[in-house]
Amino acid sequence: MLLKEQYETVRRRSEKICAPLKTEDYVVQPIVDVSPPKWHLGHTTWFFETFILLPNAKDYTVFDPQYNYVFNSYYESVGARVIRTNRGNLSRPAVEDIMRYRKYVDEAMISFLEEELSPELQELFILGLNHEEQHQELLYTDIKYILGHNPLFPAYDIHHKDIPVVNNPGDSWLNIRAGVYDIGFAGDGFCFDNELGRHTVYLADYKISTTLVTNTEYLDFIQAGGYQDFRYWHAEGWDWVKNNQVTTPMYWYNIDGKWMHYTWQGLQPIMPDAPVTHISYYEAAAYAAWKGQRLPTEFEWEVAAPQLAWGQRWEWCESAYLPYPGFAKAPGAIGEYNGKFMINQMVLRGGSEVTSPNHSRITYRNFFHPSLRWQFTGIRLAG
Amino acid sequence: MLLKEQYETVRRRSEKICAPLKTEDYVVQPIVDVSPPKWHLGHTTWFFETFILLPNAKDYTVFDPQYNYVFNSYYESVGARVIRTNRGNLSRPAVEDIMRYRKYVDEAMISFLEEELSPELQELFILGLNHEEQHQELLYTDIKYILGHNPLFPAYDIHHKDIPVVNNPGDSWLNIRAGVYDIGFAGDGFCFDNELGRHTVYLADYKISTTLVTNTEYLDFIQAGGYQDFRYWHAEGWDWVKNNQVTTPMYWYNIDGKWMHYTWQGLQPIMPDAPVTHISYYEAAAYAAWKGQRLPTEFEWEVAAPQLAWGQRWEWCESAYLPYPGFAKAPGAIGEYNGKFMINQMVLRGGSEVTSPNHSRITYRNFFHPSLRWQFTGIRLAG
Amino acid sequence: MLLKEQYETVRRRSEKICAPLKTEDYVVQPIVDVSPPKWHLGHTTWFFETFILLPNAKDYTVFDPQYNYVFNSYYESVGARVIRTNRGNLSRPAVEDIMRYRKYVDEAMISFLEEELSPELQELFILGLNHEEQHQELLYTDIKYILGHNPLFPAYDIHHKDIPVVNNPGDSWLNIRAGVYDIGFAGDGFCFDNELGRHTVYLADYKISTTLVTNTEYLDFIQAGGYQDFRYWHAEGWDWVKNNQVTTPMYWYNIDGKWMHYTWQGLQPIMPDAPVTHISYYEAAAYAAWKGQRLPTEFEWEVAAPQLAWGQRWEWCESAYLPYPGFAKAPGAIGEYNGKFMINQMVLRGGSEVTSPNHSRITYRNFFHPSLRWQFTGIRLAG
Amino acid sequence: MLLKEQYETVRRRSEKICAPLKTEDYVVQPIVDVSPPKWHLGHTTWFFETFILLPNAKDYTVFDPQYNYVFNSYYESVGARVIRTNRGNLSRPAVEDIMRYRKYVDEAMISFLEEELSPELQELFILGLNHEEQHQELLYTDIKYILGHNPLFPAYDIHHKDIPVVNNPGDSWLNIRAGVYDIGFAGDGFCFDNELGRHTVYLADYKISTTLVTNTEYLDFIQAGGYQDFRYWHAEGWDWVKNNQVTTPMYWYNIDGKWMHYTWQGLQPIMPDAPVTHISYYEAAAYAAWKGQRLPTEFEWEVAAPQLAWGQRWEWCESAYLPYPGFAKAPGAIGEYNGKFMINQMVLRGGSEVTSPNHSRITYRNFFHPSLRWQFTGIRLAG
Repeated sequence: MLLKEQYETVRRRSEKICAPLKTEDYVVQPIVDVSPPKWHLGHTTWFFETFILLPNAKDYTVFDPQYNYVFNSYYESVGARVIRTNRGNLSRPAVEDIMRYRKYVDEAMISFLEEELSPELQELFILGLNHEEQHQELLYTDIKYILGHNPLFPAYDIHHKDIPVVNNPGDSWLNIRAGVYDIGFAGDGFCFDNELGRHTVYLADYKISTTLVTNTEYLDFIQAGGYQDFRYWHAEGWDWVKNNQVTTPMYWYNIDGKWMHYTWQGLQPIMPDAPVTHISYYEAAAYAAWKGQRLPTEFEWEVAAPQLAWGQRWEWCESAYLPYPGFAKAPGAIGEYNGKFMINQMVLRGGSEVTSPNHSRITYRNFFHPSLRWQFTGIRLAG
Repeated sequence: MLLKEQYETVRRRSEKICAPLKTEDYVVQPIVDVSPPKWHLGHTTWFFETFILLPNAKDYTVFDPQYNYVFNSYYESVGARVIRTNRGNLSRPAVEDIMRYRKYVDEAMISFLEEELSPELQELFILGLNHEEQHQELLYTDIKYILGHNPLFPAYDIHHKDIPVVNNPGDSWLNIRAGVYDIGFAGDGFCFDNELGRHTVYLADYKISTTLVTNTEYLDFIQAGGYQDFRYWHAEGWDWVKNNQVTTPMYWYNIDGKWMHYTWQGLQPIMPDAPVTHISYYEAAAYAAWKGQRLPTEFEWEVAAPQLAWGQRWEWCESAYLPYPGFAKAPGAIGEYNGKFMINQMVLRGGSEVTSPNHSRITYRNFFHPSLRWQFTGIRLAG
Repeated sequence: MLLKEQYETVRRRSEKICAPLKTEDYVVQPIVDVSPPKWHLGHTTWFFETFILLPNAKDYTVFDPQYNYVFNSYYESVGARVIRTNRGNLSRPAVEDIMRYRKYVDEAMISFLEEELSPELQELFILGLNHEEQHQELLYTDIKYILGHNPLFPAYDIHHKDIPVVNNPGDSWLNIRAGVYDIGFAGDGFCFDNELGRHTVYLADYKISTTLVTNTEYLDFIQAGGYQDFRYWHAEGWDWVKNNQVTTPMYWYNIDGKWMHYTWQGLQPIMPDAPVTHISYYEAAAYAAWKGQRLPTEFEWEVAAPQLAWGQRWEWCESAYLPYPGFAKAPGAIGEYNGKFMINQMVLRGGSEVTSPNHSRITYRNFFHPSLRWQFTGIRLAG
Repeated sequence: MLLKEQYETVRRRSEKICAPLKTEDYVVQPIVDVSPPKWHLGHTTWFFETFILLPNAKDYTVFDPQYNYVFNSYYESVGARVIRTNRGNLSRPAVEDIMRYRKYVDEAMISFLEEELSPELQELFILGLNHEEQHQELLYTDIKYILGHNPLFPAYDIHHKDIPVVNNPGDSWLNIRAGVYDIGFAGDGFCFDNELGRHTVYLADYKISTTLVTNTEYLDFIQAGGYQDFRYWHAEGWDWVKNNQVTTPMYWYNIDGKWMHYTWQGLQPIMPDAPVTHISYYEAAAYAAWKGQRLPTEFEWEVAAPQLAWGQRWEWCESAYLPYPGFAKAPGAIGEYNGKFMINQMVLRGGSEVTSPNHSRITYRNFFHPSLRWQFTGIRLAG
């Protein structure tokens, strides 16, 4: 596909994700981890404006010089930024202003893409597209949080079904032999810097489940008192359970004895065979402990991945998010992309129903704090 | 004026105040004291629905049973409520839903007002109108906060001028003789319950300024180091200054050596002769201490009021908000209106440019926590 | 009594209060309002050193120049201070160091008192004695808090009985006629600056109870569900009840169906006829509301006081702590004594079993935040 | 050595560490991570009483049944516990009570050790000794924190010198060849459960410094503006620097242009050639980034360790604290020892001048949150 077409495809998809929203839904930030949808739309645009157009497009005029302050997320190199907890206090720029901003930058980009890009610039451009795809997944998860925590439980779109999930019947385990394996990105397509530094690891014999833990299986854990028994939990996880009075995955409600959860179509009964989702690392690890198993490491996962169906849930791994051997930050602002988050986060592998098409891959390393669960997370057991 | 006409006048005015807003401006809650404009529009409507229509209008059907949860402010008697800090997280009900809610309730009210109201019901109706007028002032001050704390400093309405204020030239003092005076509401129009219990107080000789402290005078205090000298401050006020790094009234900015403030028309130069506004009780008291004067008590203020021009600013008084002799809460939810706030608040008297017409009166007791300053507050000295 | 004898009497009494303590008890600060006993012993000594010896005693050498940093409580004029929440982190100076400090300053003071003091100095000296007497009451209440919140509930002194309290039998009311009354200190002995500015107030007819509310009466309120019914509470009081899960006065425990409370002798059964104590202003006001009565104002209290037995409890008044007419801070550090606390505090009148002998008087104005209850507070009704 | 002798040696050493303290020093808890010394003395005793004597020693009577509540640290299995932030509020049990408790348990233990222990019991007994040795290190670091944060900066013992540290001259690097290596405990002496699961890892070629970063080298980082340049820091580390205004290692002060630090002997000049200490993981990683190097992983460290002088500092590793393959918690309370902390902590290897003799070993895994620095931490570079 031509660069222009790729650009159009990605950019239009962001707007399509937001199409069912009311203007008000674009504005709020109910928790610090969730950003207002209009902020995502502006921030991804600001990325192209700041890193591609401004330094490279002749005669490009910034749309609004104040937007740098509003839409910078965490790039310390490029000036002050609105602190993250304040994003939900900003009624302006209005949604229509941001849509004009997108149009303005899109026209400049399309025109800029007429000419041939240097390899470095092409790399940066592809990074911009992948960056926007990452925010597309956040758009979905943030929208779900905003609507799913509203006391009226409005549907996102009554015609938008959760992707039906076919799980293999029964428990089945894949056995992998001990040995040295290569880990990390090797192809010549796009990858993020945190996947680079392909390197060898030694793995002992292990087994890994070919299926994800289902809602029914997780319900067994709930009903066996899993949330009340400290023995299955990390100390910090146990504090988290008690301080937040957690007793189920996010979005689950027991209404008149029936288990319901919030979905794109509003409150719906739990689907028994679907993989459990919206659980924290603490919950994933506690479930595994209760089963007498464990979570796979990200290396075990990557080695087994070609033999697994995957892409249904982001699967919590028993691996902290740390640099691969030889990892080095790129110079300049782009170097802030991944490395500076390599502390106090756990790795997730796989993908989810809201991951952009062709965005994830076997070497893709997602990462979140162990308490977070508004992403479409899930559990795969290993042993 | 007929009840119906009064109703129409008050209800339309709330909507007119919001007319210059963009949809996004209706949604946000940047601090706990500020409510989203759409919440005010819903809450004032809920008041009529809950206290007048529901118990009295035959065959009235509630617009949406979940709205009680969303739009109840603090009436413990009428069910659970969205905690105040969460109001800004609610994207729904949307503004258009709330406008339909207003229309629905208005039609029911107009129809209900066709018949004659009992004296008790008429009293409650008038309370509802005064309640909405109170929220009209909050609409103005909350909108100013929302726009005035946005990094883009958008104007509310470029044609909306601050009411020009003519202050008496020079310092002039009114001297009042010692004696017993009657305090509290005496007429037969409407008043709030906190004004009732007309009673006698003894006042010693005192003097009270006929003018409010101006921006120029307050600037003298700033430039004399008033914000850096603990001697002028209450201990809690001094902590407040240091913790919040307060150095000017709210909305003031020194830009390239020039004093500007945020107004309805955006950032504008300070008007030297206008009464200073957006200051806390702590600042008012510190200014008075620096001048070797004090603030008037609410009793001194009320006795002097007929001889003062007033209504420009809410004037902080050296009186805590406490019940008058014989004060008794009304039974039921309406009894929660005022009495339960009679702790840790200071009284303000007067009115402001955003007080609804004919809403305030000489016996009117406004009250806020001593640290708050997003209202149009001001300073009058006494001695 | 000679100044030297007065000095000795007051100084020895502080040490006697601490005599039953173990060294460890002198050190801790379980909540911000409670200070470590050793801090009180040092701070009262620092007062004499800083305000009397240093500026006036020829050749006086400071005991330790770093003590100013440690023992200054809140006098901004005299340098930096250990922030209040840090006091309990200081293991040094050790108790024995502070005792040597007391001895050193006492010797210098006794020698200084050999010579005649100027009237100003004599006034300051008497203030120092009254200041130490105030801290003697805090020593008692802070010690009670430290021991009474220890899971071992150690006795302070098993021979130290609560002063037996004889309450008048039955309810009896004193009726006071409307009229103008004089309020504030008039004699020529010592008083604090907040009692000065004797002035006239007008009081309407009122009645005031001749007895304090007893434990039995308060238990009726508890058992009638008083802590579960928001109608009796200020909004802030209701939040306080819920956030702190308050269901009884401080130090009360229901053990196996029997009401016990922590006393100087450890856990003991509640005495039914003793005045209830260790209650907040919120609780006092809620109790009064439940009885259909109210609390007296501090003016009503002062006028009635000569006809009441008093001095058993600090009685919460429905009066905020504000300056009397003509109140002016003294210049210099001593001026920080009272005025700067005149915000967000309620007045208490009377005294308690741990008030130093002859320390309180009819015009004495004690004050605390409405949520605090580690003092020996109580309830007198008015109507 | 006989078990009895080992017991005596370990137990007496704890008391000897505390010998220079004043009673007051045993009581305070200035931050949540630091425990009062008397608590350590009680808790290590409670361990032997609860896990060895109570279930195994015939006719053993608990010293005080309430001590379980006070001295349990984090074992959820054995009942309620004083929340960690409250430890510094407890003046009782007094130090002398705890010393009697130690004597009582010691006598019972000595008598119990007369008889032969089953292998399981012997293992538990050795765990108890190692547990007390861990608390001996904490006694040192907590005492240093308590005295080193006191405004008087009292010496711990003016005769107690920091162990002189001989660092290799100059930079020198050890090069290790790529290959598979075995990691984890293999001998038959004591180790903690987190060292078990000896397993194979593959390491790429790497180099590791034979020396630790010195104070002089670290000062270069400070003076080059390292604390002001976000590029060297993790995002959370940068927040930590700004929120806590960190500009030097803990205990460093620049006094009149001279670099001093708090030591066992009070404030002393920085020793230029000593290894830098009391730095967080964030600082260690930022220093390494500034040098264009990195920290070693715990596996790289363990493989190189036999060729390094070590035991001077706890060296931060670029490895999160996670279970080794095959790690399984022991059943019962002892199983809570290590596994439940395996989240959000980084591994430290080595030892320090305050580690108990023969307590650490090459496979020993220490761990702390990345922000903590009151331990004797240090930096070794790798590349």
